[in-house]
Amino acid sequence: MKNHEPEINSNQENPQDESRRNFLGTTAMVTLAGAGMVMGLSACKKEDGSSSSAGSAAGAGAGREAHAGEFEVPPGKLDQYYIFSSAGHNGEVRVYGLPSGRTIKRIPVFNIDPMVGWGITNESKAIMGTKADGSLKYITGDTHHVHGSYKDGTYDSKYLWVNDKLNNRLARIRMDYMECDKITDIPNVQGFHGIFPDKCDPVDAAINYTTRVFCGCEFHIPQPDDGRDVDDPAKWYTVFTCIDAESMEVRWQVKVDGNMDLVATSYDGKLAAANQYNTENGAVLADMMSAEHDACVFFNIERIEAAIKAGKSFTIGDSRVPVVDGTKAANSDPKTALTCYVPVPKNPHGVNVSPDNKYFVCSGKLSPTATVIATELVHKWFAGEVADPRETVVAEPEIGLGPLHTAFDGRGNAYTSLFLDSQIVKWNVDAAIAHFKGDKNAKPVVDRIDVHYQPGHTYSSMGETKEADGKFLNVGNKFSKDRFLPVGPLHVETEQLVDISSDKMRLIHDHTAYPEPHDAIIVRADVVKTKQIYAMEDFPNAVKAIEDNRVERNGKKVNVYMTSQAPNYGLQEIKVKLGDEVTITLTNHDKVEDLTHGFGIERYDVNFIVNPQETHSVTFKADKLGVFWIYCTHFCHALHLEMRSRLIVEK
Amino acid sequence: MKNHEPEINSNQENPQDESRRNFLGTTAMVTLAGAGMVMGLSACKKEDGSSSSAGSAAGAGAGREAHAGEFEVPPGKLDQYYIFSSAGHNGEVRVYGLPSGRTIKRIPVFNIDPMVGWGITNESKAIMGTKADGSLKYITGDTHHVHGSYKDGTYDSKYLWVNDKLNNRLARIRMDYMECDKITDIPNVQGFHGIFPDKCDPVDAAINYTTRVFCGCEFHIPQPDDGRDVDDPAKWYTVFTCIDAESMEVRWQVKVDGNMDLVATSYDGKLAAANQYNTENGAVLADMMSAEHDACVFFNIERIEAAIKAGKSFTIGDSRVPVVDGTKAANSDPKTALTCYVPVPKNPHGVNVSPDNKYFVCSGKLSPTATVIATELVHKWFAGEVADPRETVVAEPEIGLGPLHTAFDGRGNAYTSLFLDSQIVKWNVDAAIAHFKGDKNAKPVVDRIDVHYQPGHTYSSMGETKEADGKFLNVGNKFSKDRFLPVGPLHVETEQLVDISSDKMRLIHDHTAYPEPHDAIIVRADVVKTKQIYAMEDFPNAVKAIEDNRVERNGKKVNVYMTSQAPNYGLQEIKVKLGDEVTITLTNHDKVEDLTHGFGIERYDVNFIVNPQETHSVTFKADKLGVFWIYCTHFCHALHLEMRSRLIVEK
Repeated sequence: MKNHEPEINSNQENPQDESRRNFLGTTAMVTLAGAGMVMGLSACKKEDGSSSSAGSAAGAGAGREAHAGEFEVPPGKLDQYYIFSSAGHNGEVRVYGLPSGRTIKRIPVFNIDPMVGWGITNESKAIMGTKADGSLKYITGDTHHVHGSYKDGTYDSKYLWVNDKLNNRLARIRMDYMECDKITDIPNVQGFHGIFPDKCDPVDAAINYTTRVFCGCEFHIPQPDDGRDVDDPAKWYTVFTCIDAESMEVRWQVKVDGNMDLVATSYDGKLAAANQYNTENGAVLADMMSAEHDACVFFNIERIEAAIKAGKSFTIGDSRVPVVDGTKAANSDPKTALTCYVPVPKNPHGVNVSPDNKYFVCSGKLSPTATVIATELVHKWFAGEVADPRETVVAEPEIGLGPLHTAFDGRGNAYTSLFLDSQIVKWNVDAAIAHFKGDKNAKPVVDRIDVHYQPGHTYSSMGETKEADGKFLNVGNKFSKDRFLPVGPLHVETEQLVDISSDKMRLIHDHTAYPEPHDAIIVRADVVKTKQIYAMEDFPNAVKAIEDNRVERNGKKVNVYMTSQAPNYGLQEIKVKLGDEVTITLTNHDKVEDLTHGFGIERYDVNFIVNPQETHSVTFKADKLGVFWIYCTHFCHALHLEMRSRLIVEK
Repeated sequence: MKNHEPEINSNQENPQDESRRNFLGTTAMVTLAGAGMVMGLSACKKEDGSSSSAGSAAGAGAGREAHAGEFEVPPGKLDQYYIFSSAGHNGEVRVYGLPSGRTIKRIPVFNIDPMVGWGITNESKAIMGTKADGSLKYITGDTHHVHGSYKDGTYDSKYLWVNDKLNNRLARIRMDYMECDKITDIPNVQGFHGIFPDKCDPVDAAINYTTRVFCGCEFHIPQPDDGRDVDDPAKWYTVFTCIDAESMEVRWQVKVDGNMDLVATSYDGKLAAANQYNTENGAVLADMMSAEHDACVFFNIERIEAAIKAGKSFTIGDSRVPVVDGTKAANSDPKTALTCYVPVPKNPHGVNVSPDNKYFVCSGKLSPTATVIATELVHKWFAGEVADPRETVVAEPEIGLGPLHTAFDGRGNAYTSLFLDSQIVKWNVDAAIAHFKGDKNAKPVVDRIDVHYQPGHTYSSMGETKEADGKFLNVGNKFSKDRFLPVGPLHVETEQLVDISSDKMRLIHDHTAYPEPHDAIIVRADVVKTKQIYAMEDFPNAVKAIEDNRVERNGKKVNVYMTSQAPNYGLQEIKVKLGDEVTITLTNHDKVEDLTHGFGIERYDVNFIVNPQETHSVTFKADKLGVFWIYCTHFCHALHLEMRSRLIVEK
């Protein structure tokens, strides 16, 4: 028998090994140079005195190591937190438990999921949208950001929202059943990237919960995009969008300069912000990189809605959505401006709000800095009390190479992912402000920890709420390289869990994610309230009694009403004629938690489930003659294999 | 701040708590009774003297507990084993690392996966099969069993195979890239459930590797299933199928009595076996349950292939596959029989071969027994040296309620999942044989452990090879109930890892699986050999040089040849005319491991990836006017967000 403990690959280096760091730095610089870019990164000097390649000497090795089993979740014990995560271009949303990193749910949204019948049942097709022939309008999507609804500045466990960057849709997930219930197509945009719900109404403080979702879009396009101006990018622009949280209708849009990606909102409901790259409106890479500064743009929600109410809006093409002009040129007077463009170093990435509502932090990406903008000073700019938008910046610490996203611990510290340095840097916001004011003794950077490798998003437990608790930080790394057993050319991503409860960060667990997660939120387990059984009466088409099992014909349309109760379907056979349009409606009469049934028809490509007390339906054409077994696809009972029915298609 | 450590649900009982066991037993019996069945289960007396409801007293609580961190895989360390698992009616195959339980890959097979572009690229569509209009023939599947190719009685890391029970296909995965490369439609079957590769040629012992894959099918149908005999189930039957491991063509089929589900093969290549329920050929549940015995049917591969060579076959309908008659009635003379039906207690489930090739074990499901059949005696029956097929049975220990699947540790012990008891029972094969021979002192049952809840498949590390190492057992439970944080009505499944390296089993980890995994194999990490970079020359349509980037028109067909190299595509824009059929071929020129690019076209629902040195293509109709941004969907570089191109569709 061979040795069953494989040796660690030779390129599986010690996280504390400096050679890894040198290797990484070199690769990153070569890659950037290969793209024809020199970005002045050599000028980067970290304020804690460490250079990039020696950065590992600080922090990573110095902290306590997690002791064996310290964060293990033993059999039968529950996790302490949920992670709700985008799944990238897979189009779904994933739910993990922390600290275990176990995937506890996949919520299909923009993808087809045969397991639940998403994209297959009539009910899910109605949510996803169909073409005239009944086929799905889209079968792909690209989710990036997941955010939950708020009340009193923290999560209320009512909704999640997630974007589709590819086909430009916003989807909503109801938290009680953890299922997508609405999808809205957003007109006049491409590259819909960042989202954030508001936390309060800007005018009525009694509405201290989410009623709007804001959407930032990256790509500028001809308006309307109907074949005009295709060779004249100078005329193109994109819009910032507000969607009603309940109706999911598009409320309004704002024309802006530049390309937006992330979005953040203030706790007072008055401001939304988006970091912008390509304020040059360039169509090719070199042009996108030409300006020294891009912006973090702030939207004055109250003024925008007043302008729309006053009829100061226009529409684009066939869209009926009112659009107001939020470009810099049209908003030069702060006292009437709808938007405020705060200059930040070029091509920034990520904007995040501190839990105390005091600061928006915008990361440099191509600059080794994070820009700290004071919420109060943005309000003052809109009041005409601050002359230059740049004066809203209260700190701009140099923190490392490739800063992208920032999380908070509720104790005054920020944690920023450094893509090029492959690190998380912990820095103190007050120290950064003091240093910016000229205090040379103030040292913003508190700690650094190596991550593996090239982190994108990072987010902390309850970190985007007033209840930020500073327990855990999760880091979504874009390259896993050698962190897991090899699985061919397509690597899984590394998600790393960091303990941030004390002064020094501690790397405690590597978990995996099928590519490619982007942003996520970490929610305390007690916050989340779910239902485990459906209410039969919530389904208008429910087959409510066993006696209701029947086949009804109306010309060439056949309606089949069925029930399931382990281990039986309500009908033992269904006879139809070749060419019939068959609709099968199935209600699960089992009431036991977790007692889900499946419904598959052999060779007819029909496949879906009904959870306890749930109803679903499918419609298909009976285009093949013969006997086609129907069987339960979801294990339900000792006689699950014997749980069957038959579709008989006759001439 | 609220308490962030949620209390364990009140129904989250201690695994050692007998109340859980009583509760479970009651539920199971009620459920069965509710289905109108009395199966004589009350007659069950376990040979270790414990009754079902008191079964927990033995074993579970008695073993050493795993100590904290004992099986933890710390950051940077690799797992010791792979699990290759079916994903059920989701249609994919999943790969996990053990002991961590981390998902390290999802391999799309019968499903659409926008992340990789499976079902979207021309290359994947060709593997999946399309209709005349170019759309996918099927978009769903139901995978149950995954098995790997063998050499010398152990895995050779060349192929995996997985079944589709819904649309009756066998898929192959090449292990170097861990991607599906072939899918075969199987004619004349429905409910294609069990598969197993052979391990040797039955005639030429030098061919000591897999060249055939055997497929067992559950559902009997009219033959051909073209509208005839729909009301006459007595005429229906199913067939056992042999597929060529390399060409993936269907070699032959065997007409059988009853419904087959699982399949197993002997190490000498001479026998394949399938457990059978419904030998009554009943079409409804009551009829399927009427006979006291069903069978484990053995196929004599050498004789079947000789019969086909001798032309003793027929065909069914349009299918060209030769079929031989393997029914009991046609094979009454053992010396010429193609099949041997060994009677086993009714409605068995699961058939597994011991690593020493001596025994096939068939589980009772509705009987509290496992039936041990001696391989050598089956050979003797075919030689005419054993009169009655039932004489091949050498043991039939009573092991508990609802026995389904059996795994082995290579030390003479078997581990059987007990669905109704929610346990794994460890029993000694030699002791069971001695007891069967009349030795009243022989105690087959060695140990029991509670699992949570209702286990289906169970499988051990390398357990289906001659290298069975008796380290780990994984248990796929069908109900998770309260084991994880609640996520709404659809529960994730519980996979539980059991340490079987010593006398007493130890439950060491609960991990999760998105429903609904069935069977899996556990493979030592050093056995698996993968490639991390593609070979560009393996793709005949590769765009090999940067100078080859171009757009070519041929009437209304436009071919676009592109390259990707971080952070640029080879073309900055692609101009086509409304109504054109556009084919984009993209080759990734990056050579760095893990440097995958994505390719998404806004609002055109196009989404796929190219791994390092890989080529993929998509074809679509340019049916919308305007500018549509193309962007990299898979994080690749600090300037990933800026990696773009444009599709411009003009009149």
